[in-house]
Amino acid sequence: MTAVPDLMSATAGRSGVTAAGDMTSVAAHRAGIIATVAALPPRRMRLEEADGAVLAEDVTARWPLPMFDNSAMDGYAVLSSDVASATPAAPVTLPVKAEVTAGDPRSRRLTAGTCVKITTGAALPAGADAVVRAEWTDGGLDRAIITRPVRPGESIRQAGGEVLPGDLLLAAGTALDAPQIALLAAAGQHVVLARPRPRLTVLSAGNELAGLGGSVHPGQVWESNSLMLAAAARGLGCTVRRYPLARDDKRQVRAALRAAALDSDLLVTSGGISMGGEHDVFKAALRGLDTVTFRRVAMQPGTPQGFGTIGEPGVPILLLPGNPVSAFVSFCLFAGPAVRALQGRPREAPRTTAAVLTAPVRSSAGKATFISAVLNPAAGTVTPAGESTHHLSALARANALIVVPPAVTGMAQGELAEVMRL
Amino acid sequence: MTAVPDLMSATAGRSGVTAAGDMTSVAAHRAGIIATVAALPPRRMRLEEADGAVLAEDVTARWPLPMFDNSAMDGYAVLSSDVASATPAAPVTLPVKAEVTAGDPRSRRLTAGTCVKITTGAALPAGADAVVRAEWTDGGLDRAIITRPVRPGESIRQAGGEVLPGDLLLAAGTALDAPQIALLAAAGQHVVLARPRPRLTVLSAGNELAGLGGSVHPGQVWESNSLMLAAAARGLGCTVRRYPLARDDKRQVRAALRAAALDSDLLVTSGGISMGGEHDVFKAALRGLDTVTFRRVAMQPGTPQGFGTIGEPGVPILLLPGNPVSAFVSFCLFAGPAVRALQGRPREAPRTTAAVLTAPVRSSAGKATFISAVLNPAAGTVTPAGESTHHLSALARANALIVVPPAVTGMAQGELAEVMRL
Repeated sequence: MTAVPDLMSATAGRSGVTAAGDMTSVAAHRAGIIATVAALPPRRMRLEEADGAVLAEDVTARWPLPMFDNSAMDGYAVLSSDVASATPAAPVTLPVKAEVTAGDPRSRRLTAGTCVKITTGAALPAGADAVVRAEWTDGGLDRAIITRPVRPGESIRQAGGEVLPGDLLLAAGTALDAPQIALLAAAGQHVVLARPRPRLTVLSAGNELAGLGGSVHPGQVWESNSLMLAAAARGLGCTVRRYPLARDDKRQVRAALRAAALDSDLLVTSGGISMGGEHDVFKAALRGLDTVTFRRVAMQPGTPQGFGTIGEPGVPILLLPGNPVSAFVSFCLFAGPAVRALQGRPREAPRTTAAVLTAPVRSSAGKATFISAVLNPAAGTVTPAGESTHHLSALARANALIVVPPAVTGMAQGELAEVMRL
Repeated sequence: MTAVPDLMSATAGRSGVTAAGDMTSVAAHRAGIIATVAALPPRRMRLEEADGAVLAEDVTARWPLPMFDNSAMDGYAVLSSDVASATPAAPVTLPVKAEVTAGDPRSRRLTAGTCVKITTGAALPAGADAVVRAEWTDGGLDRAIITRPVRPGESIRQAGGEVLPGDLLLAAGTALDAPQIALLAAAGQHVVLARPRPRLTVLSAGNELAGLGGSVHPGQVWESNSLMLAAAARGLGCTVRRYPLARDDKRQVRAALRAAALDSDLLVTSGGISMGGEHDVFKAALRGLDTVTFRRVAMQPGTPQGFGTIGEPGVPILLLPGNPVSAFVSFCLFAGPAVRALQGRPREAPRTTAAVLTAPVRSSAGKATFISAVLNPAAGTVTPAGESTHHLSALARANALIVVPPAVTGMAQGELAEVMRL
């Protein structure tokens, strides 16, 4: 594993320094988004709904874990001193006085010189100080022949051995995935205060866009961004809604944005933001709203970008360019941090790795360039997937993006490149 | 990036060679699962449902992409020879004869000596051979002042420039994620033959298990595995159902398994498989069914494992041990390959990386040992997260598992360990 300087981070600053004069750096645009997006209000939710949510408070243990001494093995609960001399050649035989299985509510007591048959997870009988695993016995029901000695405490999970009451189970800000949910369930913390998965709504608009399954008339193309961004948003853990395709009509678009903002935590649009004429419908619909800013960001693809909030309280809106590859790369760079901010998760630099270029790449001066590529992690190499930074067919074959910093206009075969995995 | 020998793979063989006599290696158990699980029958589905599905046929392009010559910029469509002499000092002025916007169905024709105002994505007028971007003009409506020459073809996306009819768009076996769905949408391929996300059903059973939100009586613990495995299964892209918790009653459990098999593609159970007494309810329920095998696998945690198929046609069933960490580690190792096999995806060795241990680890002889750990990718280090391989509290803090091969019983601080990311 090679540590790579983060060419896109605000602290590394290279992008910021070298962005052309009228353009914002990728890092500065991202920092603006993170600074603006407020964490969602937390709510109490049952663990069943909490997969993908983020804890909004520290959770401390109310009970010990395990709650009671129990057996780690199927076998026999014994007093270890009773079997101290046991060997395969000279086993110890003990009468079996009872059997206790996992979940059995009756409390048992072991008498010295006897044993209790026990299953994994069953409560240890009072008086027992060890469990002899079944493999070291004959498995008898009336009397057990035991061929190995055990240490005091052997094969016992002690009450509180893992967690004591008052121990911190999970800290505020922890994302709840399978292991965290299991720990909370096992510890009896079945309702948590957490920030839910953000509700993300995807909108697209444009007279040139034809819906899926229909026909295209001359001059039209099939709309592909909303399905793409919806899938990418699910990948970020959001619950996702797609809004019906709108015509190039700023009143219609404004109404759609207003309606979507009512029950969304993040809006993502694509297209309609490039130069700002009436045909750039999202830009036209939001003109005059001083909570939304349109910028040229020093990146290729994806130079035109919009971001801000709409409605009261402000719902964040990311306005991405219309070219599908531009929209996808922009989503990767900016929607991820916005979603993390909504969940109150700590900032995280984009995860990149370094790999050796198998072919030269060219890049725009003054812009960070993102090139669809195939990363071979085993070989540590990366290969551009197509000829253009704007080809969806190349992106669809890619598993990574090569990131060329703004100050660099080309890299040779064999150079070490920064790579973002998809 | 360091290439690491795959200590768990069948080809590497180390695990297989060193597993203790009566145990199956992790690689052999996994290979048996992959060999048994048949790919799901593919079905035709709309792209809207295809996120996470896997193509079951090659998809070739029916139309060119782009479908027609169009502008890559907002600006003016021109004949490049008309503006060959343009400079900021001596601009060329052309009358604007029309305006064409994206989605406009009317076909336009450019007369030499004039220009057509054009937006990004709009169809190029016949007779034009280049577009002058708006930044190099005064943006005029009646006549445009042009300050830069353009090459023939400049700022034009040519019909078929990205994809030609008959080109392979995506190959059978491709998993459909955001970019692939976008490509199919843009190419007009709105119904695909694909293997859907597998439907995975999680079952748990045991008298010792109390449901979430309720109270535990003495000897009981709260059930945590089904929520954990459901979350992990969603992480693998499955649609997931949890079956209500069953008592230790083999008839009830058999009925639940039979019902779940009717509309599941994969069943995953936890617990009830260790020694095979009546209290090991899944083992008892499946006794005599020669399509299910129970084994001791040379791994820690997670030695007892079951796998097979039930019902007709056989639905694969993974029977995982009941300890939550054992169940989770088993799920990571065996459910992933089973899900890939269901989707007809190529086999893939578990992705591991190498990192330097910041503390020594101990491990069981003869078993591959999986230790909950915190990987620091930037530093290239890995730190055990707890003292026991069976502690859920350690797993809940972990982002990786250290994998210690069966032949190794301990590793020192500073040694390079194989690490699986979670």
